[in-house]
Amino acid sequence: MRPTLGWIGLGNMGRPMVTNLLAAGYEVTVYNRTEATAAPFVERGAKLAASPKELAEQVDVVITMVSDSTAFHAVFEGEDGLLAGVRAGQTVIDMSTIAPETSRDAAAKLREKGGHFLDAPVSGSVKPATDGTLVILVGGERDVYEQHVPIFDVLGKKSFYFGDNGQGANAKLVINMLLGITMQGLSEALVLGAKTGLDRATLLEMVSVTACASPIIAMKTPSILEENFTAAFALKHMEKDFGLALEAAKQAEAALPATSAAHQSFIAAKANGHGDDDIAAILVQLEKMSGLR
Amino acid sequence: MRPTLGWIGLGNMGRPMVTNLLAAGYEVTVYNRTEATAAPFVERGAKLAASPKELAEQVDVVITMVSDSTAFHAVFEGEDGLLAGVRAGQTVIDMSTIAPETSRDAAAKLREKGGHFLDAPVSGSVKPATDGTLVILVGGERDVYEQHVPIFDVLGKKSFYFGDNGQGANAKLVINMLLGITMQGLSEALVLGAKTGLDRATLLEMVSVTACASPIIAMKTPSILEENFTAAFALKHMEKDFGLALEAAKQAEAALPATSAAHQSFIAAKANGHGDDDIAAILVQLEKMSGLR
Amino acid sequence: MRPTLGWIGLGNMGRPMVTNLLAAGYEVTVYNRTEATAAPFVERGAKLAASPKELAEQVDVVITMVSDSTAFHAVFEGEDGLLAGVRAGQTVIDMSTIAPETSRDAAAKLREKGGHFLDAPVSGSVKPATDGTLVILVGGERDVYEQHVPIFDVLGKKSFYFGDNGQGANAKLVINMLLGITMQGLSEALVLGAKTGLDRATLLEMVSVTACASPIIAMKTPSILEENFTAAFALKHMEKDFGLALEAAKQAEAALPATSAAHQSFIAAKANGHGDDDIAAILVQLEKMSGLR
Amino acid sequence: MRPTLGWIGLGNMGRPMVTNLLAAGYEVTVYNRTEATAAPFVERGAKLAASPKELAEQVDVVITMVSDSTAFHAVFEGEDGLLAGVRAGQTVIDMSTIAPETSRDAAAKLREKGGHFLDAPVSGSVKPATDGTLVILVGGERDVYEQHVPIFDVLGKKSFYFGDNGQGANAKLVINMLLGITMQGLSEALVLGAKTGLDRATLLEMVSVTACASPIIAMKTPSILEENFTAAFALKHMEKDFGLALEAAKQAEAALPATSAAHQSFIAAKANGHGDDDIAAILVQLEKMSGLR
Repeated sequence: MRPTLGWIGLGNMGRPMVTNLLAAGYEVTVYNRTEATAAPFVERGAKLAASPKELAEQVDVVITMVSDSTAFHAVFEGEDGLLAGVRAGQTVIDMSTIAPETSRDAAAKLREKGGHFLDAPVSGSVKPATDGTLVILVGGERDVYEQHVPIFDVLGKKSFYFGDNGQGANAKLVINMLLGITMQGLSEALVLGAKTGLDRATLLEMVSVTACASPIIAMKTPSILEENFTAAFALKHMEKDFGLALEAAKQAEAALPATSAAHQSFIAAKANGHGDDDIAAILVQLEKMSGLR
Repeated sequence: MRPTLGWIGLGNMGRPMVTNLLAAGYEVTVYNRTEATAAPFVERGAKLAASPKELAEQVDVVITMVSDSTAFHAVFEGEDGLLAGVRAGQTVIDMSTIAPETSRDAAAKLREKGGHFLDAPVSGSVKPATDGTLVILVGGERDVYEQHVPIFDVLGKKSFYFGDNGQGANAKLVINMLLGITMQGLSEALVLGAKTGLDRATLLEMVSVTACASPIIAMKTPSILEENFTAAFALKHMEKDFGLALEAAKQAEAALPATSAAHQSFIAAKANGHGDDDIAAILVQLEKMSGLR
Repeated sequence: MRPTLGWIGLGNMGRPMVTNLLAAGYEVTVYNRTEATAAPFVERGAKLAASPKELAEQVDVVITMVSDSTAFHAVFEGEDGLLAGVRAGQTVIDMSTIAPETSRDAAAKLREKGGHFLDAPVSGSVKPATDGTLVILVGGERDVYEQHVPIFDVLGKKSFYFGDNGQGANAKLVINMLLGITMQGLSEALVLGAKTGLDRATLLEMVSVTACASPIIAMKTPSILEENFTAAFALKHMEKDFGLALEAAKQAEAALPATSAAHQSFIAAKANGHGDDDIAAILVQLEKMSGLR
Repeated sequence: MRPTLGWIGLGNMGRPMVTNLLAAGYEVTVYNRTEATAAPFVERGAKLAASPKELAEQVDVVITMVSDSTAFHAVFEGEDGLLAGVRAGQTVIDMSTIAPETSRDAAAKLREKGGHFLDAPVSGSVKPATDGTLVILVGGERDVYEQHVPIFDVLGKKSFYFGDNGQGANAKLVINMLLGITMQGLSEALVLGAKTGLDRATLLEMVSVTACASPIIAMKTPSILEENFTAAFALKHMEKDFGLALEAAKQAEAALPATSAAHQSFIAAKANGHGDDDIAAILVQLEKMSGLR
């Protein structure tokens, strides 16, 4: 029998994910700080909870999709928080990107009450969230992960189990740093091209048919050609993820020379006013550094 | 009417390319320093020339596919060289990766005799050469390029015109530096993964379904998992290409911080005995730097 | 009239500093976890306190010189801690290197009780501590700093006021990152020298008479020539300071490309077993990276 | 008996150096492209030669102090060049900074005529040239070096023998890259200071009394405080020297991560219009990268 689900966080990502769960026939209860956001989902059959605690008391599995570790704390702890409502055997799954320590801490607190915790951050943004093609990176107990695969299969095209709590978050850092380096590398290539007289559109078309072609480059190509840097993934968030990856690397004694060089460029981009632009705007900062702007 | 072709250079790349031209019905005359290498092509209908000069005298279009600028000089200049045999209206196409100056110099010398020159280096190695799916990057006169597109269409899936002589070579540097950064970035990601306890095979499978997935990563994944670093693309050649890209960038006043950081890692890899290994062995060097080996 | 002093922390730095204060005629009460360490000072006229709290109750000014923020917490907080014994008008001066936040937190807690706090980390190790030639970097209220200059004049050759609490610690990060880059730069220079056949001793003698000569290079030259890397300043501590400087830089949006490159080399050195060696051992790691070891 | 000297190159460096040789009692014949520049020296007793060839014919030892390898070629080769006038046993000493290959080539050509060559670039600019306190870095035959030490002792405070021809030039690259890193490191430290609210003048005064203090930092401190970046040592020349050092490192398989990061900042500074400013202007570029300008 399908578990009943509780959902916290109806932002850009949370809304299409809940839509997919409802479409798949799950019974979903939602909680959102601003109740108006929840209304359209109630119309489509979702129930509404008055607080995270109440939500936890009404469902089998709680999923949180909030902005960061601080937002997770706000719904997890406190008098009206999730933890206060949790009962033995229940599972909380966080699909936001929270710090590995936050994940381990939440897991420990749930364990004390007989509950379980999975950190299950996703790779992919609004489009794959809508299409149900996210990639889901999971840390926690393996059997708890396996029990919840049917839910992940609705939300994503593939889920991966990476080990204890915090390992989902670590895997997310790995994939995001690779994303950031790809954008940095592409941008440096385009700066060299611009400085040596190669046509940008032709270069990008060339890249698209070589072994370096990737979905992220394909996705960002129109933004680059139109110089439209409205954020799909804000540069400041990538700067933060680079910082977290390098912090984890420092603690684990991993030397990451190119990642660290890229991170400094992202810090420069932020310092030059591009924090709220899309990650593709790293190109603009590199152009400035080479006197092109 | 189809031009008759002359081909110089029957190495790993040259052999499948000539095979494709013969299969497409072109009349091809070949020249190779060691005549035995040419024998199988003669059996399949190719003619044999005794010297680059003779070759030039016998065909409409000459294509060279040799190892580097030095090798190109050896067949182009001198008493028996291509240049000595060239006549007005004839085109020489170099598909090796030669320096932009070498290209511009050859073009000038041919122009004096009424000939034409295209630099047309390729992206892709033996497999795409065999499949006729190379990507061809062309510099030279635009109308000369356009006349020879039918030949490029046999050898590659796509050709791009980048401007004057030397621009094909510049575009090649751009794509190769992007390839190198991709390998560096992937390797740093895997080192961070290894140090934080993430399973390598699972990480690589994860990458393959995210927006960072690329043919080059897919191609190198088995080598990495098997730790088999037999060279498809030797690390020392990538080190050299990084050097050429950064030299071009320096002259053009383009600052490339992550490329330059990656280059230093490739130099370290070469200094630690990995020059003849595949570019994927950059992972081994980064593992050493992080105390994993 | 001279204030009476309380001293906590009789390590390598604390011992010569207390010796200098006693020699200058100050009345000093000491506290140390292991009482035996305090004995020689009692013989020379120092008093002994049974706990940090008691110490605070007995003197006008308390100075702490411990290993890090954690050690500072241990003596500052708790039932027997400094804070419990502090009274209005009293000043606590920390001369360890503690985090800016720890400093601001201590200052706030003292302020509540009418007390004052200065963070006054030092640049210089055992030799200048013995000679009374430390450089002292101070954060806190300016008039409180000025009142205590006579004490700083005994311990160091020069003290600098940098602003509010935490700014002494920030200045310490700035000077230490410069120290680290100097060692990294010298080591890269020596690696290039070694690889191009220049005699190391001659190179170091040359550096000593050029505009790049510095006390730190002079100090480390014998260690480098003898390859004796017994720690005067452990590499792992420099790695940590680089990390703190880059963390502060990230938060303040300062891009530090060479510092960040040097930091990665120090992480590599630590990962390769050089954490407990002297900072001069960064040379060994760079030699490894260039295949010299 | 003292040898008679011939001098070519009466620029900012050459003028005070000749002045010192005349003051020390040497008989000096000069040659300069623009004769007017030579006039003041003729007044003080120098002889005048009509061409480099004639100069060589008239003296025992020829010293060149020109701008670069190209300028050296211009006076060394050709019908009226030094080489044409040289006789067996004669020594030519170049004190400019020329490429190691240029040095080895000149040495080989002189050897054929029984002559000798020393490359003897200097560390230090106009002030030490005037004071006779240059540092002189010599490559060539050891006994030829030893014979000419008395001349070096007039021009500099210390000379160093580094091995075969070209090694003087290599040593110069080593010292200059260390100079460049020192400026980069200082500038990054000042940027971090500026971003965290530390007073610049206080920071620089602090540096001046720590173990990081160096003559180059002392020399540049007034320029930095006054933001006066009139070139004593033009940034573009340091960018070039970084490039040469990294080229030598690449060929010798030396990985120089921080040098390479600093080089990219210098390229950025040049691309942003600071090539003709003093090397201290690297601070301005780093301030731009951190959004301070």
